[in-house]
Amino acid sequence: MLNFNFQNPTHIYFGEGQIKAISREIPLNAKVLLVYGGGSIKSNGVYQQAKDALAKHTWFEFSGIEPNPTYDTLMKAQEIIKTENIDYLLAVGGGSVVDGAKFIAAAALFEGDDPWDILAKNQKVTKALPIGAVLTLPATGSESNGNSVVTRNGNKLPFASPLVRPLFSVLDPSVTLSLSDRQIGNGVVDAFVHTIEQYLTYSVNGKVQDRFSEGLLQTLIEEGPKALSPATKEDLEVRANIMWSATMALNGLIGAGVPQDWATHMIGHELTGAFGIDHARTLSIVLPAVMKVKREQKREKLLQYATRVWHINEGDDDARIDQAIRLTEEFFKKMQLPIRLSDVDLGSNDIDLLINRLDQHRLTALGEHSDITIETSREILTLAI
Amino acid sequence: MLNFNFQNPTHIYFGEGQIKAISREIPLNAKVLLVYGGGSIKSNGVYQQAKDALAKHTWFEFSGIEPNPTYDTLMKAQEIIKTENIDYLLAVGGGSVVDGAKFIAAAALFEGDDPWDILAKNQKVTKALPIGAVLTLPATGSESNGNSVVTRNGNKLPFASPLVRPLFSVLDPSVTLSLSDRQIGNGVVDAFVHTIEQYLTYSVNGKVQDRFSEGLLQTLIEEGPKALSPATKEDLEVRANIMWSATMALNGLIGAGVPQDWATHMIGHELTGAFGIDHARTLSIVLPAVMKVKREQKREKLLQYATRVWHINEGDDDARIDQAIRLTEEFFKKMQLPIRLSDVDLGSNDIDLLINRLDQHRLTALGEHSDITIETSREILTLAI
Repeated sequence: MLNFNFQNPTHIYFGEGQIKAISREIPLNAKVLLVYGGGSIKSNGVYQQAKDALAKHTWFEFSGIEPNPTYDTLMKAQEIIKTENIDYLLAVGGGSVVDGAKFIAAAALFEGDDPWDILAKNQKVTKALPIGAVLTLPATGSESNGNSVVTRNGNKLPFASPLVRPLFSVLDPSVTLSLSDRQIGNGVVDAFVHTIEQYLTYSVNGKVQDRFSEGLLQTLIEEGPKALSPATKEDLEVRANIMWSATMALNGLIGAGVPQDWATHMIGHELTGAFGIDHARTLSIVLPAVMKVKREQKREKLLQYATRVWHINEGDDDARIDQAIRLTEEFFKKMQLPIRLSDVDLGSNDIDLLINRLDQHRLTALGEHSDITIETSREILTLAI
Repeated sequence: MLNFNFQNPTHIYFGEGQIKAISREIPLNAKVLLVYGGGSIKSNGVYQQAKDALAKHTWFEFSGIEPNPTYDTLMKAQEIIKTENIDYLLAVGGGSVVDGAKFIAAAALFEGDDPWDILAKNQKVTKALPIGAVLTLPATGSESNGNSVVTRNGNKLPFASPLVRPLFSVLDPSVTLSLSDRQIGNGVVDAFVHTIEQYLTYSVNGKVQDRFSEGLLQTLIEEGPKALSPATKEDLEVRANIMWSATMALNGLIGAGVPQDWATHMIGHELTGAFGIDHARTLSIVLPAVMKVKREQKREKLLQYATRVWHINEGDDDARIDQAIRLTEEFFKKMQLPIRLSDVDLGSNDIDLLINRLDQHRLTALGEHSDITIETSREILTLAI
C-alpha cells in the first residue's frame, strides 16, 4: 500500500425523504442561491421539496446549467451572487450541476484576474462559497468530492480543491426514478469506470482498497441492468445500491493508498470537448481499448479482475483476460452504451483532432505509469474505431 | 437499505513516517497534553517521533492510561489540564489510550456535577477538547470514531459523541511491529468482530455495505495469521492491511444503512468488567455462542457469510452454517484467542454474576432485533462454557 492522506467530511443524508435535511444543514441567516439545470427538477418534485425545505431561508435561484457545464453559463451566476450577497450555494441536480456550482463557488471569491485561470493555469483555489447538494443523478461522485470539470470553447478542463467539496449532500434514491434510460446507463458506466481507474493499475497489495473496488464493480454489474429492465426499474433498493455505489466510487476512499490511472477519462474528455459525446459514452468507448493496449502493464490486475469481479476461473491467463474485457464490453452494451467510435459515427478521420487537443492540453504522459504518450493515445483511439 | 446519515471528518495520515504530520495538524499556539499508556511508546520510538514533531509546540504529558481505562485514572488528568490551560489532546497509543483521551476531553469541559454522568446517565457531551491521535495498535477503530468505553469499579460503560472524534489520526503500520503476539491477535479479532456486529444481522439488501464488510473479513482472515507467523510477521504490507482494515471496521461506513447487532460486545463488556478478561478475548468467547443461539434469525446472512467469506459452496444450508461457525472458531484459535469460558478458567458458576451485571446495566434487549433478553444472554453464556 502507498502512503496516503485521506479526509472526506461531507455529511451524507441518504434515503427517501431526506431532502428536508437541507433546512437544518444550511444556516438560517445564509443567503442561498439554488442552482440547477434545465428544469427536470420541477417535473419530478425535487424543486418543490427543496423549496419547502428552504421555507425559512432567504434564497434566490440560478438555472440553465447544461450537461458539461460551460464557463460562459457559470459566469452568468456571478451577477446575482454580487447583487444579492449570496453566501451559500445549493446545487440541485446531477454531476454537471454540482460541478458547475463548484466553479461558481470558487469564481465568486477568486482574487486573480480571470477565474478561467483556475482551470487553464491551475491557479489554486484559496476561498470558495460553501456548497450543499441534492443529487438527482448517481454517476460522477461530485456530491462528496472536490473535483469539477468545466468546458470553454470545446476545451473540457478539470480542477480540484477541498474548498469546493459539498459540506453536505442529500442522496434520495426515489428521485432517480424519473431518470431516462440513457441517464441511468450513463451514470452506472461512469461510476464503473471511476472505480476501474483506481483499481485496474498495478498491485501494491492494498487488500482493502481492492476488495472495496471489486464490491462496487460487482454491485454495479448486478444492479445496473435491473434499473433498465421493465420488471425491476421501479425497485427503490436497486436505485439505492446504484446511488451509494456511485458516491463511494469517487469520494476518495477506494483510491487512497493505491496507484490511479485516469487515462480513459483524459482521452474521453477530448471526445466530449470536440464532438459533444456524453461523458460516460466516451468512457465506454475508450476503456476497452486502454485495457487492450496496456494489457501487459495491467496483467496482474486484469487477472484479479477476471477472477474476482467476473468469476472467470477457467482457461489460461490470456483467455481469462480476453474474456474479462469482452464481458466488460457486453456490460456496457447491456447498459445501452457505445463501445466503439463507429457506434457514435466517428472514425479514423477524427483521431487527429483528438490527438491535437491532447497535445494542446499537455496530456502527453497519462496513466498510472505516465507512459501513455500522444502516440499511445493514438494507438488507443485507433483500436477504438 | 435503511435511511442513514453518515459523516466522518477525521483526517487520516497513513503510512511509514507520517507521525511528523502532527506538527502541522496541531495549531502552533495550542497547549498540548500528550496522553499515553504504560511507556511502550518510549521503547518503540513513537514517543521520540511525537516529541520531535512537537518541537515547536508547548506541550505536557500525562501517562498511565491502562487497558480498559478507568475513570479514576482519567480524572487525574484534569489537574494538569486546569493548571496548564491545556486546549488540545494528543493521544499516542492503542484504543484504550484514545478512548481515555476522549473521556478526558469531554470531562475537561463538562458543565454538570460529575463527568461520570456522561457514562452512567447518558448525559450529552456538549463540548470537548480537540483530539489528535497516533495509533500504535490496530483494533478498536477509536482513532476515527466518536466512541469510548470507560471502566469504574468493574462497570465498563460506553459513551459516544461526534465532539470526541479525533480531528486527525496518524496510522503508521511500522510502529505495530513491536506489538506482542497477544496484542496482534486481540486487535485482529476485535476488528473482525466489529465487522461481524454490523454485517451478520438480517439482509436489507445493502450490497455495498455487505461487500465492504466481506472485504474486511477476508482481509483479516488472510493477513491476521501472517502477522503471527515468524516468516511474515515483519512484513509491513501485512501490518498495513490489518491497520487499515481495523480503522474501516469501525469508522461508521460499513454500518451506515444496515442493522447492527452489538450483543457480543455488550455481553463481552461484562466479562471484562467482572473478570478482567481482555476485550477481544471476551468477543472470541461470546460470538460463536451468539451465532449458534441466533442462528435462525441470522440464517440468511450466515449463509451469505459462509459463501462469500469462507467460500463454502458444498453441503446443505445447515451444514454450511455449521462449517462457517467452525471456521470462525478456528480462525480465532489461529489468532491464539480463547473460544470458550473454560479456556479462561471460567464456568457455570460465574454466569450469575454476569447476568446480574447485564440486568443492572439494563442490557435486557440486545441484538439487531432487541430480542436478546437476560434469559437469552444466559443461554448464550451457557453455550459458551
